[in-house]
Amino acid sequence: MSRPAVHPVEPPPFIDGRNDAAPPRRVRMKDVQGMPGTPTGLALRLCQFIFALISLAVMATTSDFPDVTAFRYLVAAVGLQSLWSLSLAMIDIHALCVKRSLRNPALITTYAIGDGITSTLTFAAACACAGITVLISNDLNKCDVNHCKRFMSATAMAFISWFAVSPSFFFNFWSLASR
Amino acid sequence: MSRPAVHPVEPPPFIDGRNDAAPPRRVRMKDVQGMPGTPTGLALRLCQFIFALISLAVMATTSDFPDVTAFRYLVAAVGLQSLWSLSLAMIDIHALCVKRSLRNPALITTYAIGDGITSTLTFAAACACAGITVLISNDLNKCDVNHCKRFMSATAMAFISWFAVSPSFFFNFWSLASR
Repeated sequence: MSRPAVHPVEPPPFIDGRNDAAPPRRVRMKDVQGMPGTPTGLALRLCQFIFALISLAVMATTSDFPDVTAFRYLVAAVGLQSLWSLSLAMIDIHALCVKRSLRNPALITTYAIGDGITSTLTFAAACACAGITVLISNDLNKCDVNHCKRFMSATAMAFISWFAVSPSFFFNFWSLASR
Repeated sequence: MSRPAVHPVEPPPFIDGRNDAAPPRRVRMKDVQGMPGTPTGLALRLCQFIFALISLAVMATTSDFPDVTAFRYLVAAVGLQSLWSLSLAMIDIHALCVKRSLRNPALITTYAIGDGITSTLTFAAACACAGITVLISNDLNKCDVNHCKRFMSATAMAFISWFAVSPSFFFNFWSLASR
């Protein structure tokens, strides 16, 4: 009678310390620098807030900005951007202080949508102002009667603020898609 | 002498008709309508191309567009957009005719980057033209000496073209992140 022989079947491989035969555990979202609740994420938010605020301040202190629709729109857009970035920066500071993770799909979705909207508005406002500033300074050469330098500074700051929002948006969107 | 016995090890389960013990085959990207190589994707490309071409034609037929930097930029941006969308539409038509899949990570990356660049350029140009058109028509009331209607039509067509590029970009970016 044959005894139970050792069967030449390899044991299931152990990868990363867990057994592949076990049902796959829910993978937690990865901790990528630049995402909400990380120091880089906080730095991005502060950049967005500071540049949006500078843009707002520079544009709002020119005497003739209410005469041009695009300049009024820039003030509104960077105002919204600075409020949004400040709120998220404060949430990030809180999360870093109490060491709590913000990698929650519902939160990330909200952040991605909010970032998408505010960044689109800021970029649109910056482009509209850039178009008008270039029209005044290069095409019409009327910088002597306009605050060209201030318009340019405000536009440039709005663009920098948009540059700082884009990585936040892409990080959130990417982690939402890849979870 | 013992004969080779049937060992009481369960056969590896067959899921979806393939053997899990076999080395995992490269998972194919999902077939989502709107992605390259699908009829909806082709419809989006054709929309982008047609609206970009109309915008280009309307703006290029105004006599004074070369005087304004933003209008020259719009012509360049929608020109690039129409070339890009036409090329991808032709690739889509070819893929649909020969029933070949375009869901290849390298190709999707190229599409996502190209869509991101062309849509940003088109949107920036449309916003700059919108700023100037609103300045001429609402703020300065000088529509009697300018082609306001044509500028507005060209701007609106550029915005519609951008609206049609955005889903293509998001589909590609999403499928890139979620593969």
